[in-house]
Amino acid sequence: MSERMRRPAPDNGLRATGRTDQAVGDRRRLRGAESRQAITRHAVDLASLEGLNGLSLGRLATDLGISKSGIQTLFRTRENLHLAVIETAERLFADAVVLPALDAAAGTARLRALVEHWIGYAEAPLFPGGCFWAANLADFDSRPGPVRDRLAHQHQGWVALLAEELRQAVDSGEVADLDVELAAFQIDAVLMAANTALRLGDRDAAGKVRRVVGELLRSR
Amino acid sequence: MSERMRRPAPDNGLRATGRTDQAVGDRRRLRGAESRQAITRHAVDLASLEGLNGLSLGRLATDLGISKSGIQTLFRTRENLHLAVIETAERLFADAVVLPALDAAAGTARLRALVEHWIGYAEAPLFPGGCFWAANLADFDSRPGPVRDRLAHQHQGWVALLAEELRQAVDSGEVADLDVELAAFQIDAVLMAANTALRLGDRDAAGKVRRVVGELLRSR
Repeated sequence: MSERMRRPAPDNGLRATGRTDQAVGDRRRLRGAESRQAITRHAVDLASLEGLNGLSLGRLATDLGISKSGIQTLFRTRENLHLAVIETAERLFADAVVLPALDAAAGTARLRALVEHWIGYAEAPLFPGGCFWAANLADFDSRPGPVRDRLAHQHQGWVALLAEELRQAVDSGEVADLDVELAAFQIDAVLMAANTALRLGDRDAAGKVRRVVGELLRSR
Repeated sequence: MSERMRRPAPDNGLRATGRTDQAVGDRRRLRGAESRQAITRHAVDLASLEGLNGLSLGRLATDLGISKSGIQTLFRTRENLHLAVIETAERLFADAVVLPALDAAAGTARLRALVEHWIGYAEAPLFPGGCFWAANLADFDSRPGPVRDRLAHQHQGWVALLAEELRQAVDSGEVADLDVELAAFQIDAVLMAANTALRLGDRDAAGKVRRVVGELLRSR
């Protein structure tokens, strides 16, 4: 995204026609960035439903009713499209789950806020197919490459965030000592399982998550 | 499978040529059943790696270097192929994980045996892409239809089996009273998470599962 959204080069005294050409080029670049953003957002929804792996430049072009060459100009390769989709999904996830939880105090309050916003993210859902990482990590875990690495890195970041709040909760004496890495792994595991259960119609999925988290955060 | 593997109709006194025709037909049916079995086994491996959704009659024919019409004769439709793959995966899972655990006494011993055989199933792995349900349930949970229903039904059966052993363990006083449905949900969740973690190179995935299960089975 950054390459296309960067500011135009400063006016370097080109003749009038040059300036006009540049203005046209700038407008085109801006329009390109706007369509890239809109198209990527649509692609995230598609990938949450059908998996990133089913998402090709041609499939996306057909779905949006635009030319494949237009999509190709914006993303160049299928892998670039996948990486752009992943970055957009991460940004939307951060806006929906992580940032709102930062208002809560570090430790158990923020951990509970992260879990509640995550449940909302899976229940609402932000993406029509539910959790983006649940859908795609299970698919890409056996496909080595930059897409898998990026998905795994994002997922590790999320688990590390849970572990950080658990560590805070232990350090401040809010909860009894516990294996924070293990507890973070468990919380992430039940969130992912709840996402699948929600998609399959389990009405108690959120309740199960809350009971597991409540149990882990007891001050035993 | 049953339709093609059923015994030939009993000899009903057809004339010699009729009998020969029937013998040829029987041999063909048997060969059909054998190739169907071999082809389905290969398709299970493919589906564990690339997802059932990427598995079409044409893709399978190309992969095996045989004609698409040959595959079509065996499975007729893509959905039938998917359902045959799912049944085969379930049979292989039962042989690798469930049946060997039945030697252990009902309750905590059998639960631990199920978990250990499951870890072996994901670590070895039985299917090259790891757990068949982890790969496909996350993909099909947003695709209503008989394939999703069958996958969900099999998965529910597995969680119910875990719950049954937990119930035994509580009833016999082996472990303190606990919410068996919730504990079964948790054990399944960490197994699924461990499957992903294993694929991504986490060497402590099995250790995490054992610690969570150990914690749940304490006699508090």
